[in-house]
Amino acid sequence: MQAGDLLSERTEVVIRFNEADPLGIVWHGNYIRYFEDGREAFGKKYGIGYLDIFGAGLTTPVVHVSCDFKKSVKYGDTIIVETRFINSPAAKLIFEYTIYNRDNMEVVAKGKSIQVFLDKDTAALQLINPPYYSSWKKKWGQP
Amino acid sequence: MQAGDLLSERTEVVIRFNEADPLGIVWHGNYIRYFEDGREAFGKKYGIGYLDIFGAGLTTPVVHVSCDFKKSVKYGDTIIVETRFINSPAAKLIFEYTIYNRDNMEVVAKGKSIQVFLDKDTAALQLINPPYYSSWKKKWGQP
Amino acid sequence: MQAGDLLSERTEVVIRFNEADPLGIVWHGNYIRYFEDGREAFGKKYGIGYLDIFGAGLTTPVVHVSCDFKKSVKYGDTIIVETRFINSPAAKLIFEYTIYNRDNMEVVAKGKSIQVFLDKDTAALQLINPPYYSSWKKKWGQP
Amino acid sequence: MQAGDLLSERTEVVIRFNEADPLGIVWHGNYIRYFEDGREAFGKKYGIGYLDIFGAGLTTPVVHVSCDFKKSVKYGDTIIVETRFINSPAAKLIFEYTIYNRDNMEVVAKGKSIQVFLDKDTAALQLINPPYYSSWKKKWGQP
Repeated sequence: MQAGDLLSERTEVVIRFNEADPLGIVWHGNYIRYFEDGREAFGKKYGIGYLDIFGAGLTTPVVHVSCDFKKSVKYGDTIIVETRFINSPAAKLIFEYTIYNRDNMEVVAKGKSIQVFLDKDTAALQLINPPYYSSWKKKWGQP
Repeated sequence: MQAGDLLSERTEVVIRFNEADPLGIVWHGNYIRYFEDGREAFGKKYGIGYLDIFGAGLTTPVVHVSCDFKKSVKYGDTIIVETRFINSPAAKLIFEYTIYNRDNMEVVAKGKSIQVFLDKDTAALQLINPPYYSSWKKKWGQP
Repeated sequence: MQAGDLLSERTEVVIRFNEADPLGIVWHGNYIRYFEDGREAFGKKYGIGYLDIFGAGLTTPVVHVSCDFKKSVKYGDTIIVETRFINSPAAKLIFEYTIYNRDNMEVVAKGKSIQVFLDKDTAALQLINPPYYSSWKKKWGQP
Repeated sequence: MQAGDLLSERTEVVIRFNEADPLGIVWHGNYIRYFEDGREAFGKKYGIGYLDIFGAGLTTPVVHVSCDFKKSVKYGDTIIVETRFINSPAAKLIFEYTIYNRDNMEVVAKGKSIQVFLDKDTAALQLINPPYYSSWKKKWGQP
């Protein structure tokens, strides 16, 4: 890794019948699940999954999420969730997402999430980077 | 209460847009939520809600659930979930459910659930009625 | 109604057991459902529910949603979802949401959604206000 | 295929964070989704998926579902859903399911679903096997 390299991962999700609404398209709230699927895949690749973080004595509740919906997807489609780590000096975990329809690689949605670090026992908000996160950032060249 | 009285409760649930599937009807898996809504209402009325049970040092995982679907319901409908306590000598919590469409009181589904008691700390299965449950049964005339 | 009056509605939602996650708090994605519950209550009060809109030959897919999470809520809590109509010259349906914990009226989340109008048969995007929406705005004093 | 061969398929599902409940284990209602994932994988292998059936002018609503829960699974586990076609003279689609924890191949749940055939336009119940289904059964040696 070079300092400043962009960290990202892509994962595929097949749309379930029960994720589509009466209009035959995926109900918009389900995209928040797909973002979580993306974060999960990212976490697995870079060793910063929910259980890694929990093992370091922390939880990372989501404090912000947003999504812009560009195209609809329907039952049977396969989407690709691209998750990008956004480096920041704050003690926050920031990701941006782009979701593509695998068939034509059209962008179907874009989004963002922000998580903070809490001590898993006291729930105290960590205002500066916890050691686990500082090490992780160093390892992956994120100044 | 007389010994052997039937304990039951009715609660209303309004069908959400996001609970209906591409056929415009409620996705069948959501009925399991409505059963839980029914159990919840029952628990509130008779003092045997999840938090009451947890307060007595127990959890009650569901070990069986079944549902027969008679009529479809759609977004905008209101259903009535009737939850009936089924008395049994076993250390189990058994409920039967009948779901009605409030508009015409037609039966839309019937179901059943069985829960067991676990110690909340050790997860040990309780083979005989825990004291909390024995007292509750006595209080409500369930021999 | 006076021109420019703020249109808003409040509705209560009881947090279901199955909406909470392994941390014991409501999984963040479920707030998107609560926003929909809020919109639904608003639509019922002001005659602009999903079925009213559909009856006018239109659908209103969500094109943007965002949420800021301030406090956690847990199973058994009751929340109040306040939904406010945000007037705009664009052919869009814009709502802002504030979610309160009913116990202490603390703000637990704030959010926003934007919907566009499509012809329900052709799926054509309506770039100017459809007659149904213009009438509705006039009726409720939204210039 | 030989007449009477057992038709079955196995598919893997990774447990999502948002599928686990405050006890840290998968909320029981989610197993109904896993059954649907199993049916989906079966349908893909044998050409009897939802969209195949819909293309033949039919829908197949679920009229019965049941599940026995043997072991809990938690966030991060991977399960294997085994879906078996149960042949029957009735105009019904019957499946049985066994869900295993991939780590130790312990059985975590067993279940069953029954679907009927409706004409997709008239919603008329098909009392005898629709031609599509008869052909499918013949092709796969199910007398």
